[in-house]
Amino acid sequence: MNDQESFAIAVEEAKIGYKEGGVPIGAALVSKDGKLLGRGHNMRVQKGSAIHHGETSALENSGRLPASAYKGATMFTTLSPCDMCTGACILYGISRVVIGENKTFLGGEAYLKQRGVEVVVLENTECRELMERFIKEKPEVWNEDIGEEERVYSKEEK
Amino acid sequence: MNDQESFAIAVEEAKIGYKEGGVPIGAALVSKDGKLLGRGHNMRVQKGSAIHHGETSALENSGRLPASAYKGATMFTTLSPCDMCTGACILYGISRVVIGENKTFLGGEAYLKQRGVEVVVLENTECRELMERFIKEKPEVWNEDIGEEERVYSKEEK
Repeated sequence: MNDQESFAIAVEEAKIGYKEGGVPIGAALVSKDGKLLGRGHNMRVQKGSAIHHGETSALENSGRLPASAYKGATMFTTLSPCDMCTGACILYGISRVVIGENKTFLGGEAYLKQRGVEVVVLENTECRELMERFIKEKPEVWNEDIGEEERVYSKEEK
Repeated sequence: MNDQESFAIAVEEAKIGYKEGGVPIGAALVSKDGKLLGRGHNMRVQKGSAIHHGETSALENSGRLPASAYKGATMFTTLSPCDMCTGACILYGISRVVIGENKTFLGGEAYLKQRGVEVVVLENTECRELMERFIKEKPEVWNEDIGEEERVYSKEEK
């Protein structure tokens, strides 16, 4: 599976999340040789979960793996990873994180780079528009998901 | 609930994990006013999970909470938090992390401090001995849990 196909899975997961009424962030973990290890999307609403974000769900759905399986692997995600998902990628020694967009939320990209992880931002319009729509529709769920209080999202911020 | 009582819950969780045959790391999330928000332990073995560590399990078992609930809260954990759990505490704005020990594993303590989280290390012998016993018994499970390959634990390292 190439990068484009892998990223398409993350986008598909984000859309599934949106249709389920959840936070539309999806991810796919792909091994060095292009094999899908796991895919998933944010489950805050669906599972009442505080830890099943897009990236952590992809990790969880990959199951128990030895450290060697993550070596050279790429985490494809539709949105810039939060501090928890950033830490999860670092913990498992994931080599690269490919990000759909970082305009609606900027996570731990600088820290990933600092810890030796390659970061690629695609500036994907579809991902950004899906997040913008969701944040506009359910700002309180989004704030909860990123541990923020009553932040007001202005047009300028987007 | 005071700090001692809160930490005792984390230790109890670690022991439950050990009895279940799992990674013996436990945690308890306690609010500013001493109310238990959630408790949990590492579920790698029990659930085949890559993301249910002690701290993330305590967060998960706390359910969906607004950002305000984490303000002033303390995460009590039996072991120095890994990068993922470090990031999870930062994401939710947890104010303080009280750690049983950091001799068998040193996690993201420096980064927690850098991000404004208070860190307290208790140097608790019971926690250390439980981890030492587990690492000796199941080194491969422990390596998997911290994303490491075939690390050999010498007496000196402990």
